[in-house]
Amino acid sequence: MAVSASQVLNSALNTPATRRIYRVGPLHAVRAPMREIILAPPHEPVVVYDTTGPLGDPEFAASHDLRGPLPPLREEWIRSRGAGPVTQMALARRGEITPEMEFVALREGLAPDFLRREVAAGRAIIPANVNHPECEPMAIGRNFLVKINANIGNSAVFAGKGAPCGERPWIDEEVEKMRWAVHWGADTVMDLSTGPDIHETRERILRASPVPIGAVPIYQALEKVGGVAEDLTFDVFRETLLEQARQGVDYFTIHAGVLLAHIPLAEKRLAGIVSRGGSILARWCLAHRRENFLYTHFREICEVLRAYDAVFSLGDGLRPGALADANDEAQFAELDTLGELTRIAWEYGVQTMIEGPGHVPLHLIQENVERQRRVCADAPFYTLGPLVVDVGAGYDHVASAIGGAWIALHGTAMLCYVTPKEHLGLPNREDVKQGVIAHKIAAHAADVAKGHPQAIARDRAMSAARCEFRWEDQFNLAFDPETARAYHDESLPGDEAKSAPYCSMCGPKYCAMRMTQETRERV
Amino acid sequence: MAVSASQVLNSALNTPATRRIYRVGPLHAVRAPMREIILAPPHEPVVVYDTTGPLGDPEFAASHDLRGPLPPLREEWIRSRGAGPVTQMALARRGEITPEMEFVALREGLAPDFLRREVAAGRAIIPANVNHPECEPMAIGRNFLVKINANIGNSAVFAGKGAPCGERPWIDEEVEKMRWAVHWGADTVMDLSTGPDIHETRERILRASPVPIGAVPIYQALEKVGGVAEDLTFDVFRETLLEQARQGVDYFTIHAGVLLAHIPLAEKRLAGIVSRGGSILARWCLAHRRENFLYTHFREICEVLRAYDAVFSLGDGLRPGALADANDEAQFAELDTLGELTRIAWEYGVQTMIEGPGHVPLHLIQENVERQRRVCADAPFYTLGPLVVDVGAGYDHVASAIGGAWIALHGTAMLCYVTPKEHLGLPNREDVKQGVIAHKIAAHAADVAKGHPQAIARDRAMSAARCEFRWEDQFNLAFDPETARAYHDESLPGDEAKSAPYCSMCGPKYCAMRMTQETRERV
Repeated sequence: MAVSASQVLNSALNTPATRRIYRVGPLHAVRAPMREIILAPPHEPVVVYDTTGPLGDPEFAASHDLRGPLPPLREEWIRSRGAGPVTQMALARRGEITPEMEFVALREGLAPDFLRREVAAGRAIIPANVNHPECEPMAIGRNFLVKINANIGNSAVFAGKGAPCGERPWIDEEVEKMRWAVHWGADTVMDLSTGPDIHETRERILRASPVPIGAVPIYQALEKVGGVAEDLTFDVFRETLLEQARQGVDYFTIHAGVLLAHIPLAEKRLAGIVSRGGSILARWCLAHRRENFLYTHFREICEVLRAYDAVFSLGDGLRPGALADANDEAQFAELDTLGELTRIAWEYGVQTMIEGPGHVPLHLIQENVERQRRVCADAPFYTLGPLVVDVGAGYDHVASAIGGAWIALHGTAMLCYVTPKEHLGLPNREDVKQGVIAHKIAAHAADVAKGHPQAIARDRAMSAARCEFRWEDQFNLAFDPETARAYHDESLPGDEAKSAPYCSMCGPKYCAMRMTQETRERV
Repeated sequence: MAVSASQVLNSALNTPATRRIYRVGPLHAVRAPMREIILAPPHEPVVVYDTTGPLGDPEFAASHDLRGPLPPLREEWIRSRGAGPVTQMALARRGEITPEMEFVALREGLAPDFLRREVAAGRAIIPANVNHPECEPMAIGRNFLVKINANIGNSAVFAGKGAPCGERPWIDEEVEKMRWAVHWGADTVMDLSTGPDIHETRERILRASPVPIGAVPIYQALEKVGGVAEDLTFDVFRETLLEQARQGVDYFTIHAGVLLAHIPLAEKRLAGIVSRGGSILARWCLAHRRENFLYTHFREICEVLRAYDAVFSLGDGLRPGALADANDEAQFAELDTLGELTRIAWEYGVQTMIEGPGHVPLHLIQENVERQRRVCADAPFYTLGPLVVDVGAGYDHVASAIGGAWIALHGTAMLCYVTPKEHLGLPNREDVKQGVIAHKIAAHAADVAKGHPQAIARDRAMSAARCEFRWEDQFNLAFDPETARAYHDESLPGDEAKSAPYCSMCGPKYCAMRMTQETRERV
């Protein structure tokens, strides 16, 4: 069987100290993967959430080409549902606990019926298109672990530079970025490609991805009309949406809340409209002096999404792109419209989440999330950061992690990562990794503060390992064991140092941990 | 004249787009340096706070060896005060606006008498030892820009590895780390050296530093008794304190709040005592079954500090070192003692700040700072992060920036940085840079949220430059122009790209900024 570079990739977390385990459900016999971090005896392993699906299963990895396609985990579940309403929301409302719900309940350590109730109420979504059977079910909602999304995708500037005629390395590159993001813990991935081969790139990503894939169909629709926003029509859009839904895209950013009446509000801003989709639709609206066709045809869009159990990610086309524009009339006017659309989507049983900002100063973050909750009746909130400064260029992943942690603590369900390249260029592999890890820390900080037992257990295990100088355990409990180990080895390489009761930071004489341990023994 | 590597170092911020300017005071004719970031005409320059002192003055830098010593800026001011009370607090209480206060008022854009009142009330401190005349005055207090501190210093493990006999490269290395930290914006630097040549390393750092230098005298005292904590005496400590105060150390971490009665409280913890100083004193207290000699001799310590106008940084020897230990009895019992000691220090006119945690989950941060404010009568708070997760090894600067931004918003006056090497080893140059910049972002986020006009102006200028595709202006407004430029150049090198109305992230067709600009022009 083919053995690919993926195995090298997976080895980072699949150290000898990591074990793949499965939690098996009593209702549908689903098997939900978890990762056990094995600690030095007699310490119990720490069980953590695992996003990697088959990619993180050593047996599978040893015998498959991990560039895809993955096995269709959900194929039977979907087939057995037959005709009728297929959305998780519709099923939940009918009282059914689906295999997807059971799978999520196992991963999150919750009761399956709690899942059902959250999905039925619209407080949580399970993005899992019926045509993306490779995807492992996961939930996004304020009462679950905080999730993070990684954006990938090429642009016309970057893709294909210098590629030999006939080769399309940019496709492989995006598949690799997806797997890399998932490897570091991304819960979902959005393919924002606007470069060449949009359809084929998305197809390859979907077939190889164990996590839900999001997309923004207006981008491809714009390609189809030669990049001229004014030439867009609902028919072109609908055809594109159908094409992507058929492929298996799990959630769609739809900028249906950018209304003609909102556009003048954004004119007052320092930074205007900074969302790609928002600016495309604003241009269309102004050119035709007509209402946004995504708004006027919203019920037709609901019908498409319902047919595939795809999920709305109602786009915030008017999100603030500068601190000065945060929480302004334009943003909140659009939010009101998103609340209205949420209720329409729910009429169709279409699962829905709401996208949020953007650039927001620290003191305005809480208002943002509380207002979203009220206006959108508790539909899950999915924010881009927010960045708490405008001047972080080169380090915007830090600016975003600061805002992300805070907004997640107040109930935001998923954070879209920001990489160090934000505002400067297209992220590469290293940027993707830095972005994912910074936001894993932000999400984890919120989980811990919200009292999630699984998150708290990992921190406690880390602190205990730290006090007892179990260096290998510390490395393995970190989000990036290799880097933690490498940093430690920089000044104290070798095996003896891994059991030394100190590190190079303070040296043996000044190690508070060691001194405390000794003092305890003497007392 | 000697030209050193320092000039290369300074060039990063002293691009052609940066200009050193001085604000001159009417009272004492003091000249406070500021940095102007020059933007493309007709945009006004943005004036920013500048920590670099003579190191950032191109004229000075061109004609001096920047490894020190620096000119004694404050020599005349200090001499002219003659006998009597010399502390800024005592002078402020007498109604005097000192040159130091005027200097700070100019840097912060505030009225000199506001400075005087804040210092008199103990709400702000100006750490400026009379024997550190090279130091530029700066203020730490909740009503000023949030400051950040960078810790440097070697340890016995790291210093001198492989150095040829007779050479002491570790001294140069620490001086270089100090200058490097200041270059990136550190407002103060603490020398935590515990390795060889403690005295000489500190001397070199002090003479070359334009920012206040902090130290923890118990470390050197411990060296003097052969590293045996039990053998410490107040006499050895006092002699060490005097030695360091004479050298010009501006603020001293004194762990006088670790009382015998508090130690059993820390026994209940997951991580016990994680402060070096705290663990030394706990061991001494337990070995002798006597009260902490820093507490029992606190008034004598006040007398030493008063004589040099050195500042207390009352150490939190019982700060939580794990999330599980945050806001516990041990921490708050010590805080109560620090409040008591603050009032005693103020009797002597000794300026005082309070050190804070540590590891604190997001939802407990606000309680920490509000309690400190109440218990310590508004004495400035100076926290280490706090880290909002325990599992961030390798990325703890991000975990710390998250907590730091939040605690600063609620009134913490200075953040001690944490580097990516925290918990793993001694930071190197790159770690120092990463730590400083992450915390500059956190501090700036708090400044903006608190409504500081100078901070807000920089963000507005950045957002305006972004909307108008002034790429060079964007790079120059960032905390690290070189990295921002390099990231942009990775995908779009060359001069034309610097005026292109898009970047590689979205490419020309999908640039929301460009589209918004065009739409505005058409409407």
